[in-house]
Amino acid sequence: MRFFDCQPAPSPRRVRIFLAEKGLEVPTIEVDLASGEQFGEPFRRLNPWCTVPVLELDDGTCLTETVGICSYLEEVQPEPRLMGRDRRERALVLDWNHRIESEGLAAIAESFRNHSRGFRNRSVTGPGTYEQVPALIERGRARASRFFDELDGHLAGSPYVVDSVFTMADITALVAYDFAGWIKLDPAEGRAHLARWHKSVSARPSAKV
Amino acid sequence: MRFFDCQPAPSPRRVRIFLAEKGLEVPTIEVDLASGEQFGEPFRRLNPWCTVPVLELDDGTCLTETVGICSYLEEVQPEPRLMGRDRRERALVLDWNHRIESEGLAAIAESFRNHSRGFRNRSVTGPGTYEQVPALIERGRARASRFFDELDGHLAGSPYVVDSVFTMADITALVAYDFAGWIKLDPAEGRAHLARWHKSVSARPSAKV
Repeated sequence: MRFFDCQPAPSPRRVRIFLAEKGLEVPTIEVDLASGEQFGEPFRRLNPWCTVPVLELDDGTCLTETVGICSYLEEVQPEPRLMGRDRRERALVLDWNHRIESEGLAAIAESFRNHSRGFRNRSVTGPGTYEQVPALIERGRARASRFFDELDGHLAGSPYVVDSVFTMADITALVAYDFAGWIKLDPAEGRAHLARWHKSVSARPSAKV
Repeated sequence: MRFFDCQPAPSPRRVRIFLAEKGLEVPTIEVDLASGEQFGEPFRRLNPWCTVPVLELDDGTCLTETVGICSYLEEVQPEPRLMGRDRRERALVLDWNHRIESEGLAAIAESFRNHSRGFRNRSVTGPGTYEQVPALIERGRARASRFFDELDGHLAGSPYVVDSVFTMADITALVAYDFAGWIKLDPAEGRAHLARWHKSVSARPSAKV
């Protein structure tokens, strides 16, 4: 296996945390997103969507979404279980993971990419050319705030995102929380349960990656 | 179990097709999205995100994302396998399913919700109030077109989305394809492989639901 990473980007950090929790080491290649390496032919042959993370399997198959990559790694190294211990938990982990991506990560990315000068004409992830839409700067922030409100309410009754066990859903939420700093949004503000949870998951050694 | 459905909406159709392929029958409640039933207290207690589909388990747990719901149903009724037969296939199904959602379904929804008069102030799924952003009408179409181009290229070398077997990834792609009609986009135009695949998956009895 080979793991294509980019240190500053939020999504591949999810895979790094997952690997650290599993105690897995996979040969890693840093992709220089800042210089546009993801749009060059060599990388595009691996992943036509031009995104990281990518996990290339030994047979050449490339997984290009965090959920696919983590599902594979969960089967390579089942313990500790990060994607649920029974059918209900497994479903809840996928459920929350998706919700956190679409309402949290995607909302923050929407605000960031439509604002940052570095993403002019690249307001959408991938190889396409899309002008920035200024209205999305505030809309993304509002959506992210609302998402953190919901998550805070949920964490009032649960130590982790899914029941009482640390899972991939916590990893995605942790990365979304930290990513919010990129748009100068502090998820802890007025959200005591979320702040408590963040302190706890950030203290894990895996969070340092 | 109870399944909360809405006939005209694309996302719950994914679950209906999944159930039909499995030969499963689950007590079903129709939610009247047009009248705003999803924003009322009874439904909001089940799903604070105010979206369908929802699968309520016998212990009261509610799954609110298609990927979580299908994962649960796959374990309730493993055959026929719709989420992969080995670790590589399972990862690829989740990988493609996510890509089709974020690049296909979400792009079409972006174009549709920012255009339709019925979604004024509701340009984002869920209970929040978000004004329509006219720039997203064309952007969503362009993203969807690009997505169908990629999928067409992929299907040139594969009878189904993942290898030679019908999976959840085909279900999501089928629903995205048909949803494109809502924005008057014909995915078949100039995409012979995609058209061949669509004809094949649409001929399955499950596609009629």
